[in-house]
Amino acid sequence: MSRRRDVDVPDLVERARAGEARAVARLISLVEDESPLLREVMAALAPHAGHAQVIGITGSPGVGKSTSTNALVTELRRQDKRVGVLAVDPSSPFSGGALLGDRVRMQDHALDRNVYIRSMASRGHLGGLSWSTPQALRVLDAAGCDVILIETVGVGQSEVEIAGLADTTMVLLAPGMGDGIQAAKAGILEIGDLYVVNKADRDGADQVRRDLRSMLQLGERPEGSWRPPILKTIAQQGEGLDEVVAEIAKHHEWLASSGELDARRTRRARDEIEAIAVTALRQRWGDVHGRTELDDLAAGVVAGTTDPYAAADELLAAFTD
Amino acid sequence: MSRRRDVDVPDLVERARAGEARAVARLISLVEDESPLLREVMAALAPHAGHAQVIGITGSPGVGKSTSTNALVTELRRQDKRVGVLAVDPSSPFSGGALLGDRVRMQDHALDRNVYIRSMASRGHLGGLSWSTPQALRVLDAAGCDVILIETVGVGQSEVEIAGLADTTMVLLAPGMGDGIQAAKAGILEIGDLYVVNKADRDGADQVRRDLRSMLQLGERPEGSWRPPILKTIAQQGEGLDEVVAEIAKHHEWLASSGELDARRTRRARDEIEAIAVTALRQRWGDVHGRTELDDLAAGVVAGTTDPYAAADELLAAFTD
Repeated sequence: MSRRRDVDVPDLVERARAGEARAVARLISLVEDESPLLREVMAALAPHAGHAQVIGITGSPGVGKSTSTNALVTELRRQDKRVGVLAVDPSSPFSGGALLGDRVRMQDHALDRNVYIRSMASRGHLGGLSWSTPQALRVLDAAGCDVILIETVGVGQSEVEIAGLADTTMVLLAPGMGDGIQAAKAGILEIGDLYVVNKADRDGADQVRRDLRSMLQLGERPEGSWRPPILKTIAQQGEGLDEVVAEIAKHHEWLASSGELDARRTRRARDEIEAIAVTALRQRWGDVHGRTELDDLAAGVVAGTTDPYAAADELLAAFTD
Repeated sequence: MSRRRDVDVPDLVERARAGEARAVARLISLVEDESPLLREVMAALAPHAGHAQVIGITGSPGVGKSTSTNALVTELRRQDKRVGVLAVDPSSPFSGGALLGDRVRMQDHALDRNVYIRSMASRGHLGGLSWSTPQALRVLDAAGCDVILIETVGVGQSEVEIAGLADTTMVLLAPGMGDGIQAAKAGILEIGDLYVVNKADRDGADQVRRDLRSMLQLGERPEGSWRPPILKTIAQQGEGLDEVVAEIAKHHEWLASSGELDARRTRRARDEIEAIAVTALRQRWGDVHGRTELDDLAAGVVAGTTDPYAAADELLAAFTD
């Protein structure tokens, strides 16, 4: 309790904006831990956020996401951008080992004060993004990052969630992984703004590219819409990343000029507000001490004296009138 | 519109309860299609629901879920139970073919008037259960099914959702699929009330059983709690299903005597009421024609004039005061 009082939020935000990595880390911890100061933090960040370009990076395990993220950071630093990285780890203990190795490799940039790297836990075994990911994004944004990369395992719902959070979603593939079919299955054909075939020096890279191209062409796009390019990289050697950065910039220009950037950000803000409001309501419904209104209604449904729709009406009436 | 008026809900419910398959099918269609009559249907069903035992069946592709479901129906019919089956298909076109074959095999029971089989679409590519699954369950329950089997692909979130809906969750495994590791990864160790190693005549079945047993023992269980049995079947030949049915009955007894049955059903009703209430609220927030309150708030967040928490407070204040 006494430590909590020590936190001077406006000062922390000021120091984060001045580029102090420890202040950035502290702010992200406050949002991750759902600190009682969370609201104060978010209010203090609000006037400074909204400048960063958010890039989502997703793909099946083994395509080289961390290596690509690392190489992308190098390329962006070459262009003197301030970069934030949110790496959403799977919570599974089985993949922890391999990822740790990747994470260590990311330490290329550990001493660069214009790069913030933060690992975040994923939500449950389905690989969903943590609920605090949008808030952590806002911290990095307000701290003056020009570009924020969110790297996730391309498993379960995280790849759909990342497309909801990012301005530009980059889907990574690699030869020899049966990605053609996998791509269609996982729904990535709908979420990619940019496709990158990594490990392009391996057999089958051109085939992956061809398969992907024909699958993308099956879905017709209306006039004036963005046509996702398919690029090739060898991230391990930093090859092709300049082109990736150029295409990301091109996509950003398209987003801005088409009005889609504003539309995506507004949609994202809507979702965020809605999620916070729904969470608050759920807490209210369950918060009355002892037996709650919702418990009574649920008992009625089980007993057959009411049905779920009538019960939902009653619940809403009790809290909204 | 005129067809809609023709529907006499109380009559339909009466006929469903009398065992008329077409009436059951019609009621499920009404809930699936979100008919304007949905509320009337749910209200009419309420007094008659709450008797069926709900069994969830899940497992990775290829373990023999449909064959097992089919064999289980045969065994339950031998005991003169009225049985409902909800088969939640993956929406992926790639697996449609194989499943269709299974589904045809299920037609063993197509002419049995005490068996209702219904395929339901899954929600999106993640294999989540359709939002209307709880409502469809309620139809089968009110129609007098003693046991309802819900069969899902063991992919993504459906296996977690099924554990939330079922009284008893049965997890299927098979040798030769690397299921040991998969099991732990997929979180099925937390959801199974019953584990069944199918294809028990194949090499490695005993190994799967041993692996599973040692993994289940890692998680200590408090005194008086249910210890999930691990059974073996050859569903294709109907072998071992009698034991499965016996263990399901034992689990049901334990649920009832421990108070857990009531707890699970109340929890399920709570979730259902909450989901309906939240959906209704979301509609309200977005329903005002033209520019909504939520849109204005989202624009403020994007512009940095407010933050998502303050915006959520305003949203709730506008609708709940």
